Amino acid sequence: MLILQIRQEFQYFYLYTWIKKRIKMMRPLTHCNKTSNNYGENTMNKPIIVLNFKTYTEGTGKNAITIAQACRDVSDETGAHIAVAPQLPDIYRVASTVDIPVFSQHVDGVEPGSFTGHIMAETVKEAGATGTLINHSERRLKLADIDASITAAGRTGLTTIVCTNNIATTIAASALGPDYVAVEPPELIGSGIPVSKADPEVVSGSVKAVRNINPDVKVLCGAGISKGEDMKAALELGSVGVLLASGVVKSNDPKKALFDLVSKI
Amino acid sequence: MLILQIRQEFQYFYLYTWIKKRIKMMRPLTHCNKTSNNYGENTMNKPIIVLNFKTYTEGTGKNAITIAQACRDVSDETGAHIAVAPQLPDIYRVASTVDIPVFSQHVDGVEPGSFTGHIMAETVKEAGATGTLINHSERRLKLADIDASITAAGRTGLTTIVCTNNIATTIAASALGPDYVAVEPPELIGSGIPVSKADPEVVSGSVKAVRNINPDVKVLCGAGISKGEDMKAALELGSVGVLLASGVVKSNDPKKALFDLVSKI
Amino acid sequence: MLILQIRQEFQYFYLYTWIKKRIKMMRPLTHCNKTSNNYGENTMNKPIIVLNFKTYTEGTGKNAITIAQACRDVSDETGAHIAVAPQLPDIYRVASTVDIPVFSQHVDGVEPGSFTGHIMAETVKEAGATGTLINHSERRLKLADIDASITAAGRTGLTTIVCTNNIATTIAASALGPDYVAVEPPELIGSGIPVSKADPEVVSGSVKAVRNINPDVKVLCGAGISKGEDMKAALELGSVGVLLASGVVKSNDPKKALFDLVSKI
Amino acid sequence: MLILQIRQEFQYFYLYTWIKKRIKMMRPLTHCNKTSNNYGENTMNKPIIVLNFKTYTEGTGKNAITIAQACRDVSDETGAHIAVAPQLPDIYRVASTVDIPVFSQHVDGVEPGSFTGHIMAETVKEAGATGTLINHSERRLKLADIDASITAAGRTGLTTIVCTNNIATTIAASALGPDYVAVEPPELIGSGIPVSKADPEVVSGSVKAVRNINPDVKVLCGAGISKGEDMKAALELGSVGVLLASGVVKSNDPKKALFDLVSKI
Repeated sequence: MLILQIRQEFQYFYLYTWIKKRIKMMRPLTHCNKTSNNYGENTMNKPIIVLNFKTYTEGTGKNAITIAQACRDVSDETGAHIAVAPQLPDIYRVASTVDIPVFSQHVDGVEPGSFTGHIMAETVKEAGATGTLINHSERRLKLADIDASITAAGRTGLTTIVCTNNIATTIAASALGPDYVAVEPPELIGSGIPVSKADPEVVSGSVKAVRNINPDVKVLCGAGISKGEDMKAALELGSVGVLLASGVVKSNDPKKALFDLVSKI
Repeated sequence: MLILQIRQEFQYFYLYTWIKKRIKMMRPLTHCNKTSNNYGENTMNKPIIVLNFKTYTEGTGKNAITIAQACRDVSDETGAHIAVAPQLPDIYRVASTVDIPVFSQHVDGVEPGSFTGHIMAETVKEAGATGTLINHSERRLKLADIDASITAAGRTGLTTIVCTNNIATTIAASALGPDYVAVEPPELIGSGIPVSKADPEVVSGSVKAVRNINPDVKVLCGAGISKGEDMKAALELGSVGVLLASGVVKSNDPKKALFDLVSKI
Repeated sequence: MLILQIRQEFQYFYLYTWIKKRIKMMRPLTHCNKTSNNYGENTMNKPIIVLNFKTYTEGTGKNAITIAQACRDVSDETGAHIAVAPQLPDIYRVASTVDIPVFSQHVDGVEPGSFTGHIMAETVKEAGATGTLINHSERRLKLADIDASITAAGRTGLTTIVCTNNIATTIAASALGPDYVAVEPPELIGSGIPVSKADPEVVSGSVKAVRNINPDVKVLCGAGISKGEDMKAALELGSVGVLLASGVVKSNDPKKALFDLVSKI
Repeated sequence: MLILQIRQEFQYFYLYTWIKKRIKMMRPLTHCNKTSNNYGENTMNKPIIVLNFKTYTEGTGKNAITIAQACRDVSDETGAHIAVAPQLPDIYRVASTVDIPVFSQHVDGVEPGSFTGHIMAETVKEAGATGTLINHSERRLKLADIDASITAAGRTGLTTIVCTNNIATTIAASALGPDYVAVEPPELIGSGIPVSKADPEVVSGSVKAVRNINPDVKVLCGAGISKGEDMKAALELGSVGVLLASGVVKSNDPKKALFDLVSKI
């Protein structure tokens, strides 16, 4: 029995080491251009909000800059950690305007070369992004391509958030060694019904399972989040933050929506 | 420390139970129409050979039946466990002719309904297949679709073999709860260079990692296997069998190639 | 002006000849194992019905054979030209049972080789199919792959029906030289509202446009067809027949539904 | 015979009118911010050069701006019409720096809404692009999606170049009503062997065929073009310009390569 225990620990260690090696460039999701003491000691424990602009008109072009500025203002006033994910052509302008983290909505697992129309990590990085979504429910990838995208992002130091749709795919994604997984049951996305209320087990189950596979991977909670109480519930279920979109971007008053979102944390 | 240990065990138990629940219909990969004592007591420990016919002319239509009969003969004479994976339109004829397990080369994660041109698990099963390959390197799927294909296969009792390309994707696939994962570095497929020789760590590493994630999942070794010594090496690395194609199907004498393959086990 | 006219004619001739060369193996969509005089002189002018079984439970496995037999019976009694498109694994059994044309629901543009999980024209042909759907709205292909699928089908003598969603894509598809195009506005598929009533211009416009591009290509009318009057309207708009599915396959009495369908022609 | 002729003309007219209606926003591919008389009377007859930056390191980020400036300089000095196609995240910076036309490498056929990770025409336009490649051989699209991308581009006034791989797909693409088709046999891309020399018939055949289908669509010649004589040959075959990449972008001296390219026209 003891031998079995030791053997199992050894194997776990093997796996753990392998995954560790893979994750060379973990970056905390903090303001990229600020010194860390802006947030005091407990920076790393602050919950995270990632705002996906999708292809909403309200989050496109000049509007993308306006929303990003609202995020920056709320971040400055409340100390909340807010990152934005505008569309590809808007990354440069948004990243040049605000100093909060900017994420790409997608990155392909390609290297420099002949990949016309693909999204290369290096280009996204040079445009000012510090991270990227991968495998969003509206841009699903093949398993081998998620792996390649994480590798490409790691090559350039981009923080990675892999989106998943249930506990099984969350475990699978966490095995690939991203920085975050964001679990979003597709039927709840854009529904206004928070996953933390409709299906809390998918969040708590994901958190527990990921901890066993790869304790370095953190879990975000997506789908239907829009209010302070949703955010609070998401954190209580063990997630370290939320990924959201319409609740803020399509709101009449994005700033007010953001203030509400962070009001209970 | 003890508490931590107990807590970790508890979480592992949670994950394990969850995966267990998912795998309702595990089926041993034995001859489907034979009584189990044909193989004696150690049936479950016999290594497994899955022969993929791809779209080789030598494995199409009437040729598919000829090769399947060769597999059946070698299986009968040596007691080796051999399964065949012909093309979709050939499943019925092959399964009607031989009594060794017949695998589909692919199954889509669809339910009965409006999915013209897709491969439904129920249809494959009714045609006589007892299992299916999923996510072969020549037919890669999205992560969420691998999950859906495994679910569809499980619904009908098809044994599942999910193909992967490295340790990371092997771990990810095993988290989805298939019966087998078959790790095949793409650069070695059809090369004649056995993965067990060129990259033994990818096999032994996969075996160890999968044991930690989901001990019910077994590992097959693919890519470049064609001879008895390759098969022997694959088993020594901890795999329970091999997935191969050209080495037998395109051989001048498939029967002789199969006899060679099983000669060292 | 005359010169311009001659020049234009010459160019048209060039295009026409090129397309002609491409279409080497046009096959009339008649009963494959019967002598042509079964239908009398006007065989070629008879309207055509292609029945897509999709992945309906009512059209899977043994049910596929039952429906195919109903089609055969109605064909025999009325002289109507009816073809069936069962799922891939059912082609062999259906084609072995009935002597009406059997179509595949899909064919990939692959040659013999390493294309695990793909549908090769040669295999489909050897299983007994005489034709194939390509680019069905539930199995859309890349433009270059439609071209490759038509080439693969032509290589083996399979009759091709390329599905399209509007006049523009119908023209595009007809330029690739299939035997038939089947225009089906996606929003009407399975709706019960016949395209011939809801959007007659898309049919008549397609017919006219195709005649200019490639007069050898015939137009089928899909989407929402289920009754004799829909079929009649489809023919009056210039199509040579219909592609349909749920109206017959999911009917309580498929035979009665088929009799109704051919009652007005 | 006369009646047949008139009838055919009538149908052609029908098709022509339909395609015309579709193409609402044709834009000449001239310098976007310059007055047209910069080029004198024969602006429209000047050959066009579209330079695809792919994901070459030499065409990424700051390098993209450098190459775009070289294009601008050669354009200014020689009067040649040169457009550039940088990667998505670089469009804004390139379009803000130079006043030659900037093309996107890809546009999805999506409308404002929930399409995370997709490329929306409006965003590309607002970032400063005036046109877009569609269906490049390295980013092939489904037929219905090419149609949707052209529609999306047309909605915002982006000039469209649809890439194709042979005469058949060129005819098909031209039926969808883009501004340009660029025919590029995939085996010659990046080969250094100009299509105008290796396979001149694919260019002249495309030109003739497109003229019959849709005389408003212009043909570009791609694949293997790098020198002045290649460009000259391409124009003599009836194309209105060239689409090229490595010959200039990966050249030691892009400016010199461009001067050479335009030297014989």
